[in-house]
Amino acid sequence: MQGRGLTLPALDPAGVPAVAGSDYPEAFRALVERGQRQRLGDALGLKNFGVNLTRLPSGCASSLRHWHSRQDEFIYVLEGTLVLITDAGEQVLTAGMVAGFPAGRRDGHHLVNRSGSDALFLEVGDRSAGDEGEYPDHDMIWRNVDGDQAYVYLHRDGTAY
Amino acid sequence: MQGRGLTLPALDPAGVPAVAGSDYPEAFRALVERGQRQRLGDALGLKNFGVNLTRLPSGCASSLRHWHSRQDEFIYVLEGTLVLITDAGEQVLTAGMVAGFPAGRRDGHHLVNRSGSDALFLEVGDRSAGDEGEYPDHDMIWRNVDGDQAYVYLHRDGTAY
Repeated sequence: MQGRGLTLPALDPAGVPAVAGSDYPEAFRALVERGQRQRLGDALGLKNFGVNLTRLPSGCASSLRHWHSRQDEFIYVLEGTLVLITDAGEQVLTAGMVAGFPAGRRDGHHLVNRSGSDALFLEVGDRSAGDEGEYPDHDMIWRNVDGDQAYVYLHRDGTAY
Repeated sequence: MQGRGLTLPALDPAGVPAVAGSDYPEAFRALVERGQRQRLGDALGLKNFGVNLTRLPSGCASSLRHWHSRQDEFIYVLEGTLVLITDAGEQVLTAGMVAGFPAGRRDGHHLVNRSGSDALFLEVGDRSAGDEGEYPDHDMIWRNVDGDQAYVYLHRDGTAY
């Protein structure tokens, strides 16, 4: 897991495996499944929040547009150009720009790479208990189950996917 | 607070005020007081964790070497060269390198800029309640008071600074 001779608590992200794919219901996977996440926070032994170094190839989105009830999110753009989409519309973010999504604000967000090159960003989210949320553009919500040990995707009427 | 035409939930850090100085007891301020922090998380309305964009000029440290009992910390180096000092010794971190300090690990850490140029990094820390900690190189600890609304610096024997 280490590179350039660094040892924990320091880490070269180049040594952290990248995870691709999506656990969304099949119908929603195409837009997001090529994104690659390196789970830096987990690799560093952090528990209270997650930190991913996420690479989105051209045409890929970070997620479906969504919001969280209890967990904050933060992103910092490192490379490339991303379009942030919220209820208010679209904004173009380049290297050094940031965005934040406070828990409980019912304004769905996601990042889409419409450029011809990869985009790279850091994403941070805390792990406050009892989180749930919605995908305002789709008939989908998520709810935590098993005492926050897992979550499920549901239709808005509560039926399972 | 906004720049380049971005509006919340997006933000250009250039529009966020930089805060310098230190609330350490006077004897401990010299090493850290020239560091400048832009409180991006606060500017974005986040509550569950803080995100600072921190600039350390040559000769400046991020803090005294310290550890937290309940709060995780993460750093991502954006520019320059920083020396990470922990119980195990020193490691040199350059742009793109990260470090993480899990809550409760009693290994004091800080970052020192021994180069001739500024260093810039992101630092993230959650706000878990009941946090306290120690400065292993000094006769100093901190304890939260007033139901986590404030903290105090104490000598190891519990007497006030």
